[in-house]
Amino acid sequence: MYNQLTDEIIEQIKAVSDHVTTGADINEDYAKDEMPIYGTRMPDLAVQPRTTEEVAAVVKICYENNIPVTPRGAGTGLAGGAVPLYGGVLIDLIRMNQILSYDMENFVVNIQAGVLLNDLAEDCSSRGMLYPPDPGEKFACVGGNVATNAGGMRAVKYGATRDYARAMTVVLPTGEITHFGATVSKTSSGYSLLNLMIGSEGTLGIITELTLKIIPAPNTVVSLIIPYEDLNTALSTVPKFKMAHMDPQAIEFMEREIILASERYIGKAVFPKELAGQEVGAYLLITLDGNSEEEVDALVEQAAELVLEAGAMDVLVADTPAKIKDAWAARSSFLEAIMEETKLLDECDVVVPINKIADYLKFVNKTGEECGLTIKSFGHAGDGNLHIYQCSNDLEEDEFKRRVDKFFGIIYKEATDVGGLVSGEHGIGSGKIKYLVDSVGETNMALMEGIKRVFDPKMILNPGKVCYRL
Amino acid sequence: MYNQLTDEIIEQIKAVSDHVTTGADINEDYAKDEMPIYGTRMPDLAVQPRTTEEVAAVVKICYENNIPVTPRGAGTGLAGGAVPLYGGVLIDLIRMNQILSYDMENFVVNIQAGVLLNDLAEDCSSRGMLYPPDPGEKFACVGGNVATNAGGMRAVKYGATRDYARAMTVVLPTGEITHFGATVSKTSSGYSLLNLMIGSEGTLGIITELTLKIIPAPNTVVSLIIPYEDLNTALSTVPKFKMAHMDPQAIEFMEREIILASERYIGKAVFPKELAGQEVGAYLLITLDGNSEEEVDALVEQAAELVLEAGAMDVLVADTPAKIKDAWAARSSFLEAIMEETKLLDECDVVVPINKIADYLKFVNKTGEECGLTIKSFGHAGDGNLHIYQCSNDLEEDEFKRRVDKFFGIIYKEATDVGGLVSGEHGIGSGKIKYLVDSVGETNMALMEGIKRVFDPKMILNPGKVCYRL
Repeated sequence: MYNQLTDEIIEQIKAVSDHVTTGADINEDYAKDEMPIYGTRMPDLAVQPRTTEEVAAVVKICYENNIPVTPRGAGTGLAGGAVPLYGGVLIDLIRMNQILSYDMENFVVNIQAGVLLNDLAEDCSSRGMLYPPDPGEKFACVGGNVATNAGGMRAVKYGATRDYARAMTVVLPTGEITHFGATVSKTSSGYSLLNLMIGSEGTLGIITELTLKIIPAPNTVVSLIIPYEDLNTALSTVPKFKMAHMDPQAIEFMEREIILASERYIGKAVFPKELAGQEVGAYLLITLDGNSEEEVDALVEQAAELVLEAGAMDVLVADTPAKIKDAWAARSSFLEAIMEETKLLDECDVVVPINKIADYLKFVNKTGEECGLTIKSFGHAGDGNLHIYQCSNDLEEDEFKRRVDKFFGIIYKEATDVGGLVSGEHGIGSGKIKYLVDSVGETNMALMEGIKRVFDPKMILNPGKVCYRL
Repeated sequence: MYNQLTDEIIEQIKAVSDHVTTGADINEDYAKDEMPIYGTRMPDLAVQPRTTEEVAAVVKICYENNIPVTPRGAGTGLAGGAVPLYGGVLIDLIRMNQILSYDMENFVVNIQAGVLLNDLAEDCSSRGMLYPPDPGEKFACVGGNVATNAGGMRAVKYGATRDYARAMTVVLPTGEITHFGATVSKTSSGYSLLNLMIGSEGTLGIITELTLKIIPAPNTVVSLIIPYEDLNTALSTVPKFKMAHMDPQAIEFMEREIILASERYIGKAVFPKELAGQEVGAYLLITLDGNSEEEVDALVEQAAELVLEAGAMDVLVADTPAKIKDAWAARSSFLEAIMEETKLLDECDVVVPINKIADYLKFVNKTGEECGLTIKSFGHAGDGNLHIYQCSNDLEEDEFKRRVDKFFGIIYKEATDVGGLVSGEHGIGSGKIKYLVDSVGETNMALMEGIKRVFDPKMILNPGKVCYRL
């Protein structure tokens, strides 16, 4: 249904962009994201544009010639979203990496979409400001974060990326340039095309510039490692923080096994494994912030009382940057630690109501056993977003995929049944479409596909992702 | 293009609903909302359904027979959104007023869409909880608040209605029932149909049930009346609160004239008019909240220092419920006070970047003079949402409308030019469509109309509103 690139079209593209590669010159990374299990494919041509106009000119040529276009940020996605499944043109936005301006009266920063999260975070920090979204992968592009509505650790208190995208410049699949949103925090001015773009994973338009809300950075931050005998007791603490008017930035849970694996991987042991002869079964890792040491000290005291009353075995305070780094080092290495110990890996980032986490994880572990899979999981206790990994160990790829498919079918259905959704922050990409259909139903899928056709009548932009099944 | 209701269709509707009125029995209020200047029209049939299924059954019959359907909440809109411009069937949701359940582990409340904001606020409050959105009109339906993404006073700290709608049950224009969202705070599971519905003003589907985020109510609340010599100085204080890590719930600004009019209307004078021989020109009215008296006392002290340093003439503290009520009484009566003194009224609720408010208001006042209109304005200094009223005084209706039309053309263009949008919280309805077109452009309007056609192929739902120009 798409046309092949011809020499003539390639020449047309080269006439509007000085940043084109073709054939063997194309970066091999472009064939995949961080989850190659969902399929790999090289593009036929790649562009690294520097400006919105350059993106628009390339897309226009593709639209006129019916050539598929796949936008890509840093390629750190976990659902296959940036893979050019149908070949064609790949637009790599990584060189659109300029932080354009700060507006300290309206508390926004203007950036190109290819700025890395880490660079934005550091630049904001150097000005005493905080860009709150904090996905685990710091070397993702912020444009990709917006395209997947990335969440991250601090979503508990500060919300997900959606809550920080105020306005954007977008190249539509036709090559037209448009703008959604404005530098205002409140609007009721027609359908929210801005919010429709957020989380649309590069299927409705290519985000090239962003206006993002930032906030003055809290002056003081402290993390607490809180060991419990078991996960249930740990999780039952979570709503109590909120009822006590405490608002942790982050509330992560982790079971014993994953801490052991992670500390093996990083070669440093920080988490207690046994207390007064009793084995630790699970942990909460929380971060509190405030505007003064006194305020945070009072919060820590209040939190310690609360968790000990709720059955915690102890409370370890990390109150210096070095100690905080140590406390989070194991958590930050979960993915690498899991990857280290398995040949093949698949994962899901299902989200369930927070009071369903414990039962849901029990169900997941039981299902894993029944399907003959090794399951490792951890997650965001404060928002119900779980990261569940399936490890192949010594299984052959086909057999592993067969088992994972069965496993996903069962656990996604259960997530839907308990009121959850397919993805909390990674997105649907190409890897999760069939589970999305099962979860939201054909009526909602038809609305999504209808919307896709409104933006992209020729269906050239990032085909095979989110809602469009070729 | 639509069919007329026939006796046969009326009988079909009566067969699925016991709550039908026709002809002279129809409530005359259904012909209008609070801004009849945008046109009035009676429906041919009205239904007051009690359940989602009843709504769906009625809509299905209308869809099959190509009859326009207009959903209505409490009719408190200010843009003509609930007026059945093409007659047909009106669905009044006011009897779907059940607060269904609270979930205190996930911090949500489930309600029918016709619950009044005031009833929800009181019910939450009786449980120590707060539903933060706080639009001026407390007797609006929460479903209507979601349909317009209503903002209100507390949006500065807590955000608009969008930030509190987690999930909804929707009757689509075809009569199908579907669900968007979930009881989770974080999701990346396909296009956000939930966010598309929020602010769509009853044109994409009829919201019948809602799952709303609630928070534990802050323990202590204090309001401050802060007089200034002029508006510029008052507004220049606003970003300073945020930079000082203070996060007022509300930051309202008001000029001398509107306070005088409002206090005349309510017959009670609370705001100082002169201090040490100097006339007060403008005020900020702010509300601070916190979890203890000590915390709020410290905030008040910090705020007082900050504003006095920034040029305030004084700070008046309202720290009891009675004093807070008094402080807000004048602000709450602005609309009534303005209505009292004019025959005809039009208004706009444009939103501009907060650092543009002062210059923009100067421009508005100058334009009002040039157009021969009396202008009264006030607004939300914390989010740039301005309420600008045009009073007819003794002008004839045609002449008034002609002048308002000219005035709007100029001030909406200026709002767009300084980076603002047409409506901060009231919506587009039928009254503001042409200004929306000028503001966002034909490309974005075509996307909106395309989306409208995806949801509503026969264009029967709330025709003539937001983006669909018949």
